[in-house]
Parts: sequence; structure tokens; C-alpha cells
Amino acid sequence: MTAPRIDALQYANWSEKIFRQMRLGNVDAVHVTITYHENFRETVRNIETWNRWFEQYPERIFQGFTVDDIALAQRSGRTAIFFGAQNPSCMEDDIGLVEVLHRLGLRFMQLSYNNQSLLATGCYEAEDTGLTRMGREVVAEMNRVGMVVDMSHSGERSTLDAIEQSTRPIAITHANPSEWHPARRNVSGRVLDALSQSGGMLGFSLYPHHLRGGSDCTLGDFCEMVARTAARVGVDRVGIGSDLCQDQPDSVVDWMRAGRWTKARDYGEGSADSPGFPPMPDWFRDNRDFETIAQGLRAAGLGDAEVAGIMGGNWARFFAESFGAVGSGQREAAQ
Amino acid sequence: MTAPRIDALQYANWSEKIFRQMRLGNVDAVHVTITYHENFRETVRNIETWNRWFEQYPERIFQGFTVDDIALAQRSGRTAIFFGAQNPSCMEDDIGLVEVLHRLGLRFMQLSYNNQSLLATGCYEAEDTGLTRMGREVVAEMNRVGMVVDMSHSGERSTLDAIEQSTRPIAITHANPSEWHPARRNVSGRVLDALSQSGGMLGFSLYPHHLRGGSDCTLGDFCEMVARTAARVGVDRVGIGSDLCQDQPDSVVDWMRAGRWTKARDYGEGSADSPGFPPMPDWFRDNRDFETIAQGLRAAGLGDAEVAGIMGGNWARFFAESFGAVGSGQREAAQ
Repeated sequence: MTAPRIDALQYANWSEKIFRQMRLGNVDAVHVTITYHENFRETVRNIETWNRWFEQYPERIFQGFTVDDIALAQRSGRTAIFFGAQNPSCMEDDIGLVEVLHRLGLRFMQLSYNNQSLLATGCYEAEDTGLTRMGREVVAEMNRVGMVVDMSHSGERSTLDAIEQSTRPIAITHANPSEWHPARRNVSGRVLDALSQSGGMLGFSLYPHHLRGGSDCTLGDFCEMVARTAARVGVDRVGIGSDLCQDQPDSVVDWMRAGRWTKARDYGEGSADSPGFPPMPDWFRDNRDFETIAQGLRAAGLGDAEVAGIMGGNWARFFAESFGAVGSGQREAAQ
Repeated sequence: MTAPRIDALQYANWSEKIFRQMRLGNVDAVHVTITYHENFRETVRNIETWNRWFEQYPERIFQGFTVDDIALAQRSGRTAIFFGAQNPSCMEDDIGLVEVLHRLGLRFMQLSYNNQSLLATGCYEAEDTGLTRMGREVVAEMNRVGMVVDMSHSGERSTLDAIEQSTRPIAITHANPSEWHPARRNVSGRVLDALSQSGGMLGFSLYPHHLRGGSDCTLGDFCEMVARTAARVGVDRVGIGSDLCQDQPDSVVDWMRAGRWTKARDYGEGSADSPGFPPMPDWFRDNRDFETIAQGLRAAGLGDAEVAGIMGGNWARFFAESFGAVGSGQREAAQ
């Protein structure tokens, strides 16, 4: 079995074309966002939509629950789809929904998305007060059932808090070092070091607002940044989280940014001049181009085993550590 | 491994005492009702409550998903709890919720409870028009994902329709032959024959309103009825579905009967003179008394293998046939 190829964040306008491209790019597993500001019932509706896709395209995709599903995907020439949430709206104010959502397959949940949530502060708030009282309880519950704490859109203090509070390694599934490109969504060296020292994972983003030079960022510049970051935090602690939002209309980025929390328009990482989805770099159009990144990483001086780890092996190890339940009397919660 | 002991319907006021009594009675698996008129979100709240019990009493109970959990219960000296719904309110008007509820562990769903539902007619309606348009679609979906169609509280025509429409055997988890005791909830010979010929199962009820003589029904009379019914429909087609409602306050029977569909009081199988839960027969107080029934069945002339089948082996075979998903590209939905 060759090393798996895993993308730790996509939120595309899903279609058979995209599922076909996943396999064309030899992508064995994808962490997909299924919900932003949707409440529990609305999130379940999104899961129902995914269930229809699983039923319609069983030869291309299936829902992933455990790390074993990566090997199943490889064996059967399909892609395992792992669910995640970019905001805790899906669990409402009810800690019991963490286990329910895990049972339904949710394997990642961000504690906040740009704004303050019931659990943590988002990266766009003026002040970050760290994890809330409920946030600490929910982190413990996520640890118990095997749901990954994802701090991609949270503030620095909240992120450091989550790293410290969580008894299991956490993830920043889609962001880049702010030292390379100082976007608010990118992460400080302090966070990078704490994340990697605790066994956590960073997924490098290909979303243009996270890239130096935006859509014009070169493959070489991106891959040198990856190699430099790997040298700093450990080559086992990094992977890809492309943040691919393929074929989405701009109305979707408006939902992501403004949800129901404002009547005004929020530009997030964009601006009034550039309100929509920016074009992807020409060397990463979609799932078919992961091999281009692997080649770029080798050109940046990384060895074959290192590249295999970054392109999926590291996420596979992290999935294995992260998705099972903890506790003696408990069954593996995914069974 | 001895033959399993399985009760195909209980709706108790759950407590550690009752979970302990399940094991004292050597009960390996119980189909428990988790919802009547609750909508989806309310049903999930009930599942959250069960999750707390599973977390609190891991040495006594765990959630059952597949037939293998019966053997796990036997090996570990616990009781496997399988979820069921006595009305389709939990799936609202949304066929996509069938698969979601199955994923959450729902293994039985009644198509109606006394009244007309979106799917079928209940046994207390004046006219029974059989399965509705949606009812036929939902039966097909339940067949696909592996959720048992339970017609315990449905009308005769709807029940015959369900037996005919369903591509997998169905169940009447808790009722007795109306020829023995003509309660509206008991089932006609016509239904019994169609049910058994299609491979379906009848669970004999110990709820006093379903018994000849009510709370005064004797063990001998009950067991002779079981033996006679087994002789008619096949000794492999019958089991126990006690309908034990242990420790419930009368307010719960009011919810079961009246839900939110009437502002008046509905007496269901009771009456104004006897509105609450009737006392159980003295030979079946609770889970500890299943051995008494086994002895009664032997006294009624049934052989050891036949008694073992009725006390659980037949339900175990039915669980094995019923809980898995159908379809080539599909994974076993309980994994």
C-alpha cells in the first residue's frame, strides 16, 4: 500500500465532477466542512444531503469514520469523506450533541469561526479571552469521544488555551505561518511551537488570502515555506489542508463570513474591492494537482519519505490517534 | 455460549436498579422505546439522555447496533440496549432522517401509534386506509438501511400492507392474538398468518391490557396461549416483547396516549375507571422473572430448544437478518 494522500480541509460545491477529480488526484481521504453557522437540525439536513451523494456515487466516495477507512479507500479506488464543522453552531448550547454529532461522523469541530462563540474567541475579535467555561467542558467531551479540536479560525490566546486544555493533540487544519504571510487567519510562531510540541498538526492552506502574493503565489515560494516550517516544528507535524472552495458561488463566502450574525456585509479576509472567492494559484486548480505540490516539495529539498508524510501520512497517523473514544467501559464510538 | 435472552419491548422509567435487574434476569438484549410523539430534535435529546446512562453504567449496559452486540453482552455480563420508536414523529416529514436515525442506532420504528400518521393508520382509527404514499417510500428506505418496520400499534389493513410492501420481514414487537383476548391492540389470525409466512416475528406482550384476565392472567393461561400460537405460526416466529413499563408514573401513559394530538384525556387501552398503568401479573414483576416464563413454557409442553428460541434465539436470528444495510456499494451502516 502506498502512503495515503489526504487533504485536511475542503468546502467545495460538491458534484460528481469533483468526486471524480479527487480520485484523479489520488486523494484517499478528505476532511470536508459540512456546516458553518447551521444549527443542529440544519447540520443534520446537510448530512442528509451527503447521504444522498454517498448513495448516488458509491463507486467514488463513502463516509469515513475511522482511520481504517483510508486503507479501504485505497483498496477500493474511492475517497473517504470525513465530516467537520467550522463553527460550533451545530452543537448549539448542548454538550450532549458532541457525542451525537460524533456518532453521525463529525470528526473535527472548530471552537470558533472568526467571531466569539460560546466556546472560544475568533481570530477577528478585538480581544481574545481564551476558552470559555463551556469551551473547557466541550474540549473535554471532544477528547472523550474522539472529535478533533480545530482552531483554524480562532484567536491566538484561545488557540494556546485549547492546546493546553486538550488532553489529546489538536489541529489547525488550514492555515499558514503568519511570519510568511501576516493574514489574521495565519498562525504565529508561538502557536506553531505550542501546537507541534503537543503533538498537534498544521495543515497548509492554499486559499489565496493565506498565501504570500495571493493568487500569484508561486509553487516554489509555497513549498519553501512548507519546508522551512517543517524544519521548525518537525516534518511529522505538518500536512495539507487546501481550503479548496471549488465551484462555489460568491453567495457562499457571504454565508461563511456573515452567517446570521450581521445584517451588513462582512469581507472576512477579502475586502470591498475583492469580496468574492479569489482565483486559486494556477499550479493548484483542484484535486488533480496534488502531485504538483508533491513535486514542488521534492524540488524544495524534502526527501521522498518526508513528502509522503506531508502529503498524507502525517494526517493518517493523526486520524489514528484522534478518532477513537477514550475510556475503559466504552466501545469504540465509531462502531 | 448459551442461547441469548431478549426482550423485544420495554419502556421503563430507567434507573440503575432496572439495569441491574436486567442482568439478574439474564437478559442479554432489550429493544427499548426511546420516543413516542417527540420530533427529531426531541428524540435526539432522549438519545443524549441514554448516552449519559451508557456513560454512567458502562458495567451494566451499552448501546447495541448489530446482532454481534448480543454475544458481546453475554461475554461481558452486560445488557445490550437497542433503540426503537413507537411512532414516526421522530422522522418528521423527512425521509432522509430514516438513515440518520439508523446511524444513531434506531433499529425499530412503528409506522403509527394508535392514530393515523403520515405513514400508516393506527389501531384506534375508525377506518384504516393502509400505507400512505409516504408510508410506502419510508418502508423501502427502512428496508434499505436496516430498520425494522414494527406494526404493533397499527390497524389491520396497514399491517397487512406493510407485510406485503416490505422486502424484509417485519415485526409486531409487543401484542398477543386477539382470538385469545380481543383487545384492539392485539392481532388477528389473518395478520398472524401473513406475518409468519413472510418471515416476520411476533413478540408476546405481558402488558395487562393485552392479557386475558388482565393483571389476574395466570402464567399457565399465558404460556398455553404462547404454545398454541407457536403451533399455528411456527415456533421460530415468536418471542417475547414484554411491554414492561416499570416504575413509570401515570403521567407517562398520558403522554403515550395523548401526545400533543388532543387537549382531552385519551384512555387508550384503559378507561376512565382505570386510567393509569395496571399492575403487572404477579408472576412477571420485572426483568428478574423471565426464568419464570421459561419454566411456564416448558410446563406448557414446549421443548428446551423451542423455549430457548422463544426466550431470545428467534429474536437474535431476526436481528441478524434485519439490522444490516442492503446494497452493493454500501458499507454496513452500523460501522
